[in-house]
Amino acid sequence: MTDSPSGVSPTLAERARSGDRRALARLLTEVENRTSKGEEALRALYPLAGHAHLVGITGAPGSGKSTLVAGLVSEARRHDAPAGPRPVAVIAVDPSSPITGGAILGDRVRMQIHAGDRDVFIRSMASRGHGGGLAMATVAAAAVLDASGFPLILIETVGTGQSEVEVAAIADTTIVVQAPEMGDEVQAIKAGLLEVADIVVVNKADRPGADRAAAQLRAMLTVGAQHDHAAVAAGRPRPKRPDVMLTSALTGAGVPELLAALDRRASRTRSSETDGTALKRAEAQLSGILAQRLAERLRSGDVAERREATLRAVAAHQLDPYTAADELLAALTDFDRA
Amino acid sequence: MTDSPSGVSPTLAERARSGDRRALARLLTEVENRTSKGEEALRALYPLAGHAHLVGITGAPGSGKSTLVAGLVSEARRHDAPAGPRPVAVIAVDPSSPITGGAILGDRVRMQIHAGDRDVFIRSMASRGHGGGLAMATVAAAAVLDASGFPLILIETVGTGQSEVEVAAIADTTIVVQAPEMGDEVQAIKAGLLEVADIVVVNKADRPGADRAAAQLRAMLTVGAQHDHAAVAAGRPRPKRPDVMLTSALTGAGVPELLAALDRRASRTRSSETDGTALKRAEAQLSGILAQRLAERLRSGDVAERREATLRAVAAHQLDPYTAADELLAALTDFDRA
Repeated sequence: MTDSPSGVSPTLAERARSGDRRALARLLTEVENRTSKGEEALRALYPLAGHAHLVGITGAPGSGKSTLVAGLVSEARRHDAPAGPRPVAVIAVDPSSPITGGAILGDRVRMQIHAGDRDVFIRSMASRGHGGGLAMATVAAAAVLDASGFPLILIETVGTGQSEVEVAAIADTTIVVQAPEMGDEVQAIKAGLLEVADIVVVNKADRPGADRAAAQLRAMLTVGAQHDHAAVAAGRPRPKRPDVMLTSALTGAGVPELLAALDRRASRTRSSETDGTALKRAEAQLSGILAQRLAERLRSGDVAERREATLRAVAAHQLDPYTAADELLAALTDFDRA
Repeated sequence: MTDSPSGVSPTLAERARSGDRRALARLLTEVENRTSKGEEALRALYPLAGHAHLVGITGAPGSGKSTLVAGLVSEARRHDAPAGPRPVAVIAVDPSSPITGGAILGDRVRMQIHAGDRDVFIRSMASRGHGGGLAMATVAAAAVLDASGFPLILIETVGTGQSEVEVAAIADTTIVVQAPEMGDEVQAIKAGLLEVADIVVVNKADRPGADRAAAQLRAMLTVGAQHDHAAVAAGRPRPKRPDVMLTSALTGAGVPELLAALDRRASRTRSSETDGTALKRAEAQLSGILAQRLAERLRSGDVAERREATLRAVAAHQLDPYTAADELLAALTDFDRA
C-alpha cells in the first residue's frame, strides 16, 4: 500500500477533496468497511485533517437530538449567519438491524430539507458491526470529512450505551441534550452522560418546566463539581462544569446562541483540554488498528487453524482463555520467526 | 503465574467454591480489575465452569427489567418451586459515574429482600472502564459464579447501547423486556434488540394494551423472520423467531411460566445454537485478553516511550494512524528479537 498519486484510492481521496460528494460517500464506505482502499485514502488524507470542530451530540431517546442537529445545520447554512454560512457535515451513529435493514430512519427525514445543498453532507453509520471499534470508525470518518473541507462536523449518537457515550466524548465539544420532563436529570446521571458534557442543552424549552429543569441542572452540576471527592481521591481532575443552555428545536429559539457558543469554543486557542481529546482520538485509532492487525494475523496462514481449535477448546471449557491467549501469541511469534 | 495449590489466589478460588461469599466477592473484584490474582483464579476455575444457564435480560429504560429480575430470583428460590429451589446469581451491568459514585441504584433496592439468603448472590458491574472489554469482563465473572456453584446466572444489562446489547447476546438465552406502551416496539427495533432475543417478555401485563402489544409483536416477528432478505442475501441465517411471553413483575403473573421456559431451554441437549454462543463467549474472552496483552507490551520497556511519541504525532496529524500502528508493531517485533 502506497500513497503514490498513480494509485486508485488517492484519486478517490483527491476527488473527495475537490468537492465530489459521490466520491466522498464512496470513500466513507471504504473507510467504514476498513478496506485496503479506505486505509490507503486515510493514510493520504489524515495529515490534511485536524482543522474541523468536532461536536458530539448525545442524549436519551426522545430528547430531540435529531431535530436539534437539523436546527444547527440550518443555522450554520444561513446566509446572514454572524460567522457566515459554512459547509457542515453530520455523522449519525444509528443502531442498525438486519431485520429492519436500516429502514426506520424517521428522525432523519427532517434533514431532507437540505437535500439540494451540496455543502450539507449527512452520513449514517451503523453502531454495530465494528467489533468494538465504533470510536475508531467515527474518528476515521470525521478525519475524511475534515480533510474534505468541512469545518464543522456534528456527530450525533443515538442511545445511551457505553460505546455511544464514548463516541460523543471523543469530540472536541460534547453536547448532552435533555428534555425538560421530570426524571431526565436522573436518567442522564445514571447513564454517566453529564460527566462527558461540555454543554448541556435543555431542549424543548417551549414546554413547561424547562426553566426549572435548567436551574436544577445548574445547581446539581455545581454541587457535583464541588463534591467530587472520588475524582480527587483517584487523582483524576475534578470534572469540568458544563454550561447549561436552553433551546427549542421546534421554534428555533436558542439555536443561534448554541451555534455561537460552539463557534467561540472552536476559535479558542487549542487548550490542553482540547489536546487531551485529540490524544484520545489518536489512541482510539491506534488501538483499533492494532487490534485489527492482530485479528488479521490470527486469521491467516497456519495460525488460523490453531485459532479455531483453541476457540473450540475454550468454548468447551477444556482450556482456560489465558492459557489459550498465551499459546496463540507464542504461535504468532513462532510464525514470525519461521 | 501458576495454579499451584500453594499460591494465594487458588486458595481464594477454593474458598469461593466452598461457599465463602466474601471470598467470592473479592475474587470477582480481582477478575473485574484484571489483576494477576484474578487471572490466576480464572485459570484455575475456568475448566470447572460450563454448567450454568446464562440468561441475559435487557430492554429499554423503564421496561421493568430489574423488577422482573427480582421476580425471577424469588421464583427460583421458592421452596415449592417445580424444579426445587436453587442458588441464583445476578450480574447487573450498570452505568457507573464518578459523579454519582454508583450511588443511584434505586432499582436494585428491591433485591434487598434476598439479603439474608446466601444462595442469592448479586453483583453490580460497571459498564464503563473496561476499555471495550465489557463482554469479556462479564463472561469472566459468569465463569467464576458458574464454577462456584450457581446453576442459574441472570445478566441484567441496563441501557440499549452497542456494548450492552452485545453482553446480553452472549448469554445462552437472551430475554428482551418490553413495556406495553405504544412506541416501545419501534424503540426495540431501532436498538436492534429483537434480533438478539430468544424470548421477548411484554412486562407490566397488568396495564391496558399488554395483550394487544404481545399480539402485534408476534405478528411483526413472524413477518420479520419471513422477509429477512437482507440476512439471506448476506449469507447469514434467518434470525430465529423468539417466543413472546407476558409477565407482570408487579403482581407476579407469568413469572413462574417464564422461569419454567428458561428451565426447559437449560435442560435441552446443547444445540448448535447454544454452541454458537459458547464460541462467541470464547472469542470475547480471547480477543479481550489478546488486546490486554498487546496493550501491556506497548506500555512497557522501550516501547512505552515510542508509543507516547507516536500518539502525540497522530494527535497533531503529523503522522497517520496506520503508519503509526505499523511502526509500533515493528518496534514490538524488534524488541522481541533483541
